[in-house]
Amino acid sequence: MKETVADIGEFGLIRRIRHLLGESGVREPALSVDIGDDTAAYMPRKGYELLITCDSLVEGRHFLADRISPFALGKRSMVANISDIGAMGGLPRFALVSLGLQPDMLVSSVEQMYRGFLEELSPFGGRIIGGNITRSDGRMFIDITLLGEAERDKILCRSGAKPGDSILVTGYPGEAAAGLRILLNASPAEDLGGHPLVAAYRTPSHRAHEGHAVARSGLAHAMIDTSDGFLGDLGHICEESRVGAEVFEERLPLSPDIKEAAKDYRWNPLDLFLGDSDDYELIITCGPEHVPPLCSVIQEVSPVLISEVGRITDEPGVIQLVSAGGKKRRVGPSGWDHFSR
Amino acid sequence: MKETVADIGEFGLIRRIRHLLGESGVREPALSVDIGDDTAAYMPRKGYELLITCDSLVEGRHFLADRISPFALGKRSMVANISDIGAMGGLPRFALVSLGLQPDMLVSSVEQMYRGFLEELSPFGGRIIGGNITRSDGRMFIDITLLGEAERDKILCRSGAKPGDSILVTGYPGEAAAGLRILLNASPAEDLGGHPLVAAYRTPSHRAHEGHAVARSGLAHAMIDTSDGFLGDLGHICEESRVGAEVFEERLPLSPDIKEAAKDYRWNPLDLFLGDSDDYELIITCGPEHVPPLCSVIQEVSPVLISEVGRITDEPGVIQLVSAGGKKRRVGPSGWDHFSR
Repeated sequence: MKETVADIGEFGLIRRIRHLLGESGVREPALSVDIGDDTAAYMPRKGYELLITCDSLVEGRHFLADRISPFALGKRSMVANISDIGAMGGLPRFALVSLGLQPDMLVSSVEQMYRGFLEELSPFGGRIIGGNITRSDGRMFIDITLLGEAERDKILCRSGAKPGDSILVTGYPGEAAAGLRILLNASPAEDLGGHPLVAAYRTPSHRAHEGHAVARSGLAHAMIDTSDGFLGDLGHICEESRVGAEVFEERLPLSPDIKEAAKDYRWNPLDLFLGDSDDYELIITCGPEHVPPLCSVIQEVSPVLISEVGRITDEPGVIQLVSAGGKKRRVGPSGWDHFSR
Repeated sequence: MKETVADIGEFGLIRRIRHLLGESGVREPALSVDIGDDTAAYMPRKGYELLITCDSLVEGRHFLADRISPFALGKRSMVANISDIGAMGGLPRFALVSLGLQPDMLVSSVEQMYRGFLEELSPFGGRIIGGNITRSDGRMFIDITLLGEAERDKILCRSGAKPGDSILVTGYPGEAAAGLRILLNASPAEDLGGHPLVAAYRTPSHRAHEGHAVARSGLAHAMIDTSDGFLGDLGHICEESRVGAEVFEERLPLSPDIKEAAKDYRWNPLDLFLGDSDDYELIITCGPEHVPPLCSVIQEVSPVLISEVGRITDEPGVIQLVSAGGKKRRVGPSGWDHFSR
């Protein structure tokens, strides 16, 4: 039976989602009012700051409905928000999900999307406690608000970077962007499920556990996730901290998969790394003496690659790319600007 | 100069909004991280529960861009959220605003919308602490998440209604719906600014102060706002409380403006009151003996009309409309279902 959202209506859909959310049967003692009232309500934990973020994904701009399954889309949109909480040093707790849906969307697809949300949220003991469903006759959109917690005074902002700091980055930024480009080059029918870069785009990882460990260690000065692209986000750090940066080209971690794809498709792998977005790695700055202990702190949580790729300078807003030969050239910060592209 | 969103780009627009939000110059001591980082962060107040809600407005569905000014639209969307917090018995505190904007939208219109948000939020000492701006090539959307607070154990849910309770309603539900119908009957060019029903639609009031007072009094059993229409929301109370309701037709408060418009346009004023949505009054249930003291509690806060319109019964899900002659007929709960209409 191919039941659509229009078949069961807004309240019917809400009932189905509440049923799905209740399946886990987990009671959250802090939650005094769960989904289904005018608001949700809970008693915040003592000694913890509340972190709050939201992120919207619009069909045709942040995702193409025919290139990603509803389940993967659900995971990906929740990861984007978990990543923001993690980049502050916190862990996620409660989510609200607002959806704008076309009436001909299948109910089973909506349910799969919620399973995707939960797949990412549940490992943290997190829950969906509210939201909103509305009809959108244009493009579908997903807007998630995520609440998290961090121990008091264990938060890392964009504004703390200091001249002389080392710049670290986790993982291989650019992989998701390469995956998206591969998807866009292929026909929708092509099965690219096994391609590692396509997987990096469809189901990216967040670094919330790593970010939480970094913030708790007290060893770092600034942190941000790479959701606006490496240069865009390094630019945010520079702007908020009133500093500049030098990035050493030959130290940028380009994964073998990116190098291969760049060769096959004649892309500049640097563009993928520096400019494009869509993965959720961390940029961290810390005093150079704290690089080794900070790496140990992260490695205790996960085996993710950590690369020292540059240093913070005292020239506000100036980001320079330093070639292997020592030549400097001023770059960005451009980042992913949804209106000017 | 008619500057558009595309002219200044996403980050340019964010800078302009941050500037506008910073104009008030008010420092919020509890807020450790304000707008402009991966997340906002604050220390929750001791002894208070956190309330959280979100509400989306989609162009063409919840508003018509050519029938409402950006300032009024901003006010209206914030009121919808403040109303939800108030209907739980809380007061609003911090908001996150997600916008999906067409690139040709004027920057000055976006700024006017934010002034509208603040116009409603600022009287509570509330602030906008985050959000998201994305390009929407289809319809514009506004998704607001609002955080509020209520003293511990002073929350009123939909689920507390008891058989025998009196049903109270504030104000004149249906006025905003009538205003919308009048707007839709007129040409976009027609100036209806002075029409009281059109004003009720464009700039509705919330009842957060009244709701807060009701919850603090401890005299009521259940409360909800009328954002899904009177019958829709009474239906929510009945469903969550596993009760039914009888509504006395001749006690329904129909304002002189509604009666006049209904006559002019040959509408059934009951449809406007019972079925349509768009205003933000409160439905409250309480033991009959508590009606007089509860009315006093509300009148201390505001001179709003309070009408006792029915009573809760023990027949789960059955809502009956009782005519002046005592005839009963089963109605709704239909409410405003965005997909099935």
